[in-house]
Amino acid sequence: MPDQPEFNLHCPLPSSPTDVIQLGHGDGGQLTQNLLQQIIYPRFANPELDRAHDSALLQLPGNALAFTTDSYVVNPLVFPGGDIGKLAVYGTVNDLLMAGALPRYLSCSLIMEEGLPIATLTQIVDSMAAAAHETGVQIVTGDTKVVDKGHGDGLYINTAGIGERCTDRLIAPQSICAGDQIILSADIGRHGLAIMAQREGLSFEAPLSSDCAALTGPVSALLAADIELHCLRDLTRGGLATALVELAETSGLGISVEQNSIAISDAVGGGCELLGMDPLYLANEGCFIAFVAKADAEIALQLLRQHAVSASSCIIGEVSDSNSGARLQTSIGSERQLRRMMGQPLPRIC
Amino acid sequence: MPDQPEFNLHCPLPSSPTDVIQLGHGDGGQLTQNLLQQIIYPRFANPELDRAHDSALLQLPGNALAFTTDSYVVNPLVFPGGDIGKLAVYGTVNDLLMAGALPRYLSCSLIMEEGLPIATLTQIVDSMAAAAHETGVQIVTGDTKVVDKGHGDGLYINTAGIGERCTDRLIAPQSICAGDQIILSADIGRHGLAIMAQREGLSFEAPLSSDCAALTGPVSALLAADIELHCLRDLTRGGLATALVELAETSGLGISVEQNSIAISDAVGGGCELLGMDPLYLANEGCFIAFVAKADAEIALQLLRQHAVSASSCIIGEVSDSNSGARLQTSIGSERQLRRMMGQPLPRIC
Repeated sequence: MPDQPEFNLHCPLPSSPTDVIQLGHGDGGQLTQNLLQQIIYPRFANPELDRAHDSALLQLPGNALAFTTDSYVVNPLVFPGGDIGKLAVYGTVNDLLMAGALPRYLSCSLIMEEGLPIATLTQIVDSMAAAAHETGVQIVTGDTKVVDKGHGDGLYINTAGIGERCTDRLIAPQSICAGDQIILSADIGRHGLAIMAQREGLSFEAPLSSDCAALTGPVSALLAADIELHCLRDLTRGGLATALVELAETSGLGISVEQNSIAISDAVGGGCELLGMDPLYLANEGCFIAFVAKADAEIALQLLRQHAVSASSCIIGEVSDSNSGARLQTSIGSERQLRRMMGQPLPRIC
Repeated sequence: MPDQPEFNLHCPLPSSPTDVIQLGHGDGGQLTQNLLQQIIYPRFANPELDRAHDSALLQLPGNALAFTTDSYVVNPLVFPGGDIGKLAVYGTVNDLLMAGALPRYLSCSLIMEEGLPIATLTQIVDSMAAAAHETGVQIVTGDTKVVDKGHGDGLYINTAGIGERCTDRLIAPQSICAGDQIILSADIGRHGLAIMAQREGLSFEAPLSSDCAALTGPVSALLAADIELHCLRDLTRGGLATALVELAETSGLGISVEQNSIAISDAVGGGCELLGMDPLYLANEGCFIAFVAKADAEIALQLLRQHAVSASSCIIGEVSDSNSGARLQTSIGSERQLRRMMGQPLPRIC
């Protein structure tokens, strides 16, 4: 099967056409039903999905909620430290957390390319189910579509999520204040560089793995604490630099960060040097920044450091009322104005 | 530009590379920001989207809601009677209605193929905005991704939707009862055949157009009335036959429908004969069946006939306690057991 190069990384080659997704799996008839009954429903099992109706019916404890969506088109489907399924659950869970909401319900919509090995699909769905279980969300509604060969890339996944807002505070860019301390939860650039390396067949001396992770633990702790938490942002596409630029713009305030405080692993640092990449612009999938009032920054740090995913949290900068965008204080003592990523696109990183 | 055949139907050819989607539009940097600011935000304008955060923050009047999702991969992007944007709004709105919920909020996630003309994107986003306005929903959160040329087909759209449940009744397959009358809201097969004809370059004497429509008017009327409404189902992929088979299975009851009562337009009837298609299996995008207790069937019919989209509603059959699946009483007096669609896939119909 020479024409199935990329989406078959960790699975045995299909031995017959019935082992791959066919156009008929997307027509809403018997094959679609088989796929749902054999692969999807058993793995995402919950009463709402089992009802097999057009929508899930949900009852929230309150009526204040957060709603988000992302499509995942990462290439390759499986990479060191994760896969598209894990990413699709964690990514949407993290987006809800960033708005100060506890993730509750997810939808899952699969766009499969004709020829996708069912073994690959099963592996990814297993991974989604495990990630949903780990993060305490239920996948309650979904959809499956099949596109003809040459019009996809194995599998694209969309997840939308509903979270329950558990604080009256508005955790948002508009709440950022002058004086806020900016905490970075982990070292940056691992996801972006791991994907790049895998795609290009590069290997480095130091092992390189995506930081793909759910942020439920540390963010729940921050939300539950009685601290002046103003804004959260995960550092996905565009990386730390783009996030800082956007937040400076939206808040109308100045952001200044110290290059020396921004942790970068040896593997990422070395890889970036080799490839001519700037780690500030590399995507992360398990890393965020928190804007906290100065008086509460130490408490926030202590809370974050109790969770493995944010054990190396530290303060990287602060907010001023200067409306001067986002600036980096470099390790050689100069100042660099940060811009949005431009001209060096890293396609299909998530 | 000979390599952009299908997604350029009704738009002028792009005159420069800046008129088409580039990989950089998907990297989360400056080009992504331009796309959002220039094309997306102005058209979907609302305070939640403008907040530009990871999730929308919503306040529902109650805490009982419905949640659904669908990805749309229809080919071609624009077809007689609709386009992928209209379909993506109406389809998700209709799925919420089918669960007895009033549609309130939608997400919108775009998977664009490198090279998609920005004029086409703009046309589709305009169409989504108009459909959202018409149906009273707000598009409050979204995502944009770009896949490299040859790994998409112009544009795929995912919408997820949140609706407010406005009835304590469980409108679902499990609520279907023996004796229920089955009402069909319109003539069947128009969407499926219109797409097929457009794709194959066929033209018929009678004009052929998709039935693509929002069902908000008639369904809201049914939900507001004090009638024994048990189940609703829109007749999308798999058509009327597959819907009846599924509902017979899920409810564990028998369904019998009269072929003579099922309206089929001359255009669809003629086209199906020519192409050897069975209209019972053709997809619809503005057509549904309602299961109503016998005593309330006449009231339901009167309500439905007041809305243009369901003006020709009529009773096509009823439910028995026989657990005998779904059967068609044919016009020549015989009985035919209906099965799920199998073996004649109509790919990318929605």
